[in-house]
Amino acid sequence: MKPSRRSFLTGAAAAGVGSVAATVAKGQTAPDPAITELQDWQVYLGDGVDAAPYGMPSKHESHVVRRTVEWLTADNVSSINFTPLHELDGIITPNGVCFERHHGGAAEIDPAEHRLMINGLVDKELVFTMEDLMRFPRENHVYFLECAANTGMEWAGAQLNGCQFTHGMIHNVMYTGIPLKLLLAEAGLKTNAKWILPEGADASAMTRSIPIEKALDDCLVAFKMNGEALRTEQGYPVRLVVPGWEGNMWVKWLRRIEVGDEPWHHREETSKYTDLLEDGTARRFTWEMDAKSVITNPSPQAPLTHGPGYTVLTGVAWSGRGTIPRVDVTLDGGKNWHQARMSGPSLNKSMHRFYFEFEWDGKPLLLQSRAHDSTGYVQPTKNQLREWRGENSIYHNNGIQTWYVNEKGEAENVEIS
Amino acid sequence: MKPSRRSFLTGAAAAGVGSVAATVAKGQTAPDPAITELQDWQVYLGDGVDAAPYGMPSKHESHVVRRTVEWLTADNVSSINFTPLHELDGIITPNGVCFERHHGGAAEIDPAEHRLMINGLVDKELVFTMEDLMRFPRENHVYFLECAANTGMEWAGAQLNGCQFTHGMIHNVMYTGIPLKLLLAEAGLKTNAKWILPEGADASAMTRSIPIEKALDDCLVAFKMNGEALRTEQGYPVRLVVPGWEGNMWVKWLRRIEVGDEPWHHREETSKYTDLLEDGTARRFTWEMDAKSVITNPSPQAPLTHGPGYTVLTGVAWSGRGTIPRVDVTLDGGKNWHQARMSGPSLNKSMHRFYFEFEWDGKPLLLQSRAHDSTGYVQPTKNQLREWRGENSIYHNNGIQTWYVNEKGEAENVEIS
Repeated sequence: MKPSRRSFLTGAAAAGVGSVAATVAKGQTAPDPAITELQDWQVYLGDGVDAAPYGMPSKHESHVVRRTVEWLTADNVSSINFTPLHELDGIITPNGVCFERHHGGAAEIDPAEHRLMINGLVDKELVFTMEDLMRFPRENHVYFLECAANTGMEWAGAQLNGCQFTHGMIHNVMYTGIPLKLLLAEAGLKTNAKWILPEGADASAMTRSIPIEKALDDCLVAFKMNGEALRTEQGYPVRLVVPGWEGNMWVKWLRRIEVGDEPWHHREETSKYTDLLEDGTARRFTWEMDAKSVITNPSPQAPLTHGPGYTVLTGVAWSGRGTIPRVDVTLDGGKNWHQARMSGPSLNKSMHRFYFEFEWDGKPLLLQSRAHDSTGYVQPTKNQLREWRGENSIYHNNGIQTWYVNEKGEAENVEIS
Repeated sequence: MKPSRRSFLTGAAAAGVGSVAATVAKGQTAPDPAITELQDWQVYLGDGVDAAPYGMPSKHESHVVRRTVEWLTADNVSSINFTPLHELDGIITPNGVCFERHHGGAAEIDPAEHRLMINGLVDKELVFTMEDLMRFPRENHVYFLECAANTGMEWAGAQLNGCQFTHGMIHNVMYTGIPLKLLLAEAGLKTNAKWILPEGADASAMTRSIPIEKALDDCLVAFKMNGEALRTEQGYPVRLVVPGWEGNMWVKWLRRIEVGDEPWHHREETSKYTDLLEDGTARRFTWEMDAKSVITNPSPQAPLTHGPGYTVLTGVAWSGRGTIPRVDVTLDGGKNWHQARMSGPSLNKSMHRFYFEFEWDGKPLLLQSRAHDSTGYVQPTKNQLREWRGENSIYHNNGIQTWYVNEKGEAENVEIS
């Protein structure tokens, strides 16, 4: 019940109850037609591949798609699509299923006609073509992008039945881009330059105020994700990357960066992306994403289908402040916590993958995960968040998520006190 | 001409010849209609995204595709498709453009009907369903897969005009899979178990002999790539991953692993994937991929289009023996070498990305890159390889590649002595 990888196998053998394979494999005494009879794919040549130059997933994976919550937005041009976290593994989100949110539709931009302007408190206002940008030094980093509203609908209690919907406003890809500080240095910052305002070229003309310290730290002007060009809905041909900070600031279809001496107090940092507290004041400029985690399997969209026995629990964790050295998992709603096994690169401000292998006894489970980040911060409970911020909030819900798994292995979104 | 990132910018300013942006940006004195006039995408709402749940690249990127060399194989069912390296950046290859080679077409397998058998010199022969496999502990690793024949057509001299064709039999993705040693331990290896023979479920029934030491070291039985299910042409639902070793051994559509006490000497390790030397003997079992690199930009498919001035040279490097701590670049055919700048995660047996920024004077260039791996091995010249192995070889050409760039910025595949 508390296996290390070693005990996962030797424990089973020692117990004499059979190993994973012995428990679940089809025995030689009852031949399995899937192996005793030749399959079509062993006998007949498969299709060639050159007819489909940009490859697509297998037809057997057609259920692995972004999904939307229909009641959430009024129209598909102000819509949102959630990453199918329960269908993924590792830490890379494939471009085809990356969460995306747009405020005026996905702008279809001809890169030859696109320009990026830097203006305001600079020595020299500049306009770059895409070809100009390709002549600046580039860097490569894997970063998570999480919407500040991710899990926001859960403030009021367990609402949505699946981690795709509760936690799917996130993706994690490798970006290639130009350090923003190089472009700002090219323009030359005036001494009173304290803020920047990136602006999108889409019809919503998205803008957010960002302090100059962040702009000069690790922001990127990115043009590739996971090796290839940004997708249209991710800001093609160029977007801002603001590592560890809320996704709304990562302005897509980036056309202009204004440099100023104070924030602009635009819609997306006043009416939206602020947290109304119990005393009537609002938290503002809460950019940094706190450490968070979620169990992706089992979960409501990914039940345990195999019955009692060894099973793999897995999930993802991330922090806007660094890495995730540790995730704890509980099977009983927090009575006992077990340290999960991390696997995959541990990169700054990137998603991390954790696993916990255990033998399921077939009884109900109350599953939770709790992330610890490299600053020592520990993911709080939802009730702790409510104590701190009241119940009016939408944004920045990084509370611990609970799944209830019944005897049939079906999972449900629940809250426990 | 030998810039660090610092000198890239300050050098330009100090020289008083203007910075990158000043040289190339559109000036305020001649207004650019692309910024003075509103674009359609700023005025009209874009398309919603929910109509296309599995996302695709922008229509402006339709040239970024795998390509084949038509004369190379007799039919598309024994065909091959090359990664467009010159269009990518960073280190992740998107699944849609990953190199693939198949010997009997891409088998379209129903995962519910697929089985993996382990037989031969084991205590207990086992058969796993895909659901069984999902109950074993998993790991995540980024590995390059390179065909042993990559660059093989270049033994006879400069043949193919583009790094997609000379070096595109490679991809680099994050795999999620089960350590093979766990499955072998489940079956129980007999004391005379010295080799394994993985076998594919496709019509070609691909097989290769692999020594047990490698099988128990870092091989994975993988079911995901870059977070999502393996693509059909990459072995869906399950393939073998043999890190750092030639791609032909990474058996796709994996249906059986036989354990034996000696190699099987099948077709793909006798007639194929051996190197005929000058003395009539053949090198065999040359599994490990030697350190290698190639400049992807500029290259024949990606010329310098911007004229003289600052430019970014970039490329990729990899080694089957570890990491790539260093890549050297020459602009003059080897007279002067400069250390390139590495950017991105440096992972074991993974592709690495390098950059070299310089100011092009508009004169012809002879570009080469030279990888150093973590064992101290240095990538050789093509002529050194020919001295060592003669001129009959096809496989394992890791020689230094040369691109000639003319005054117009056009690049060509050449050899220099």
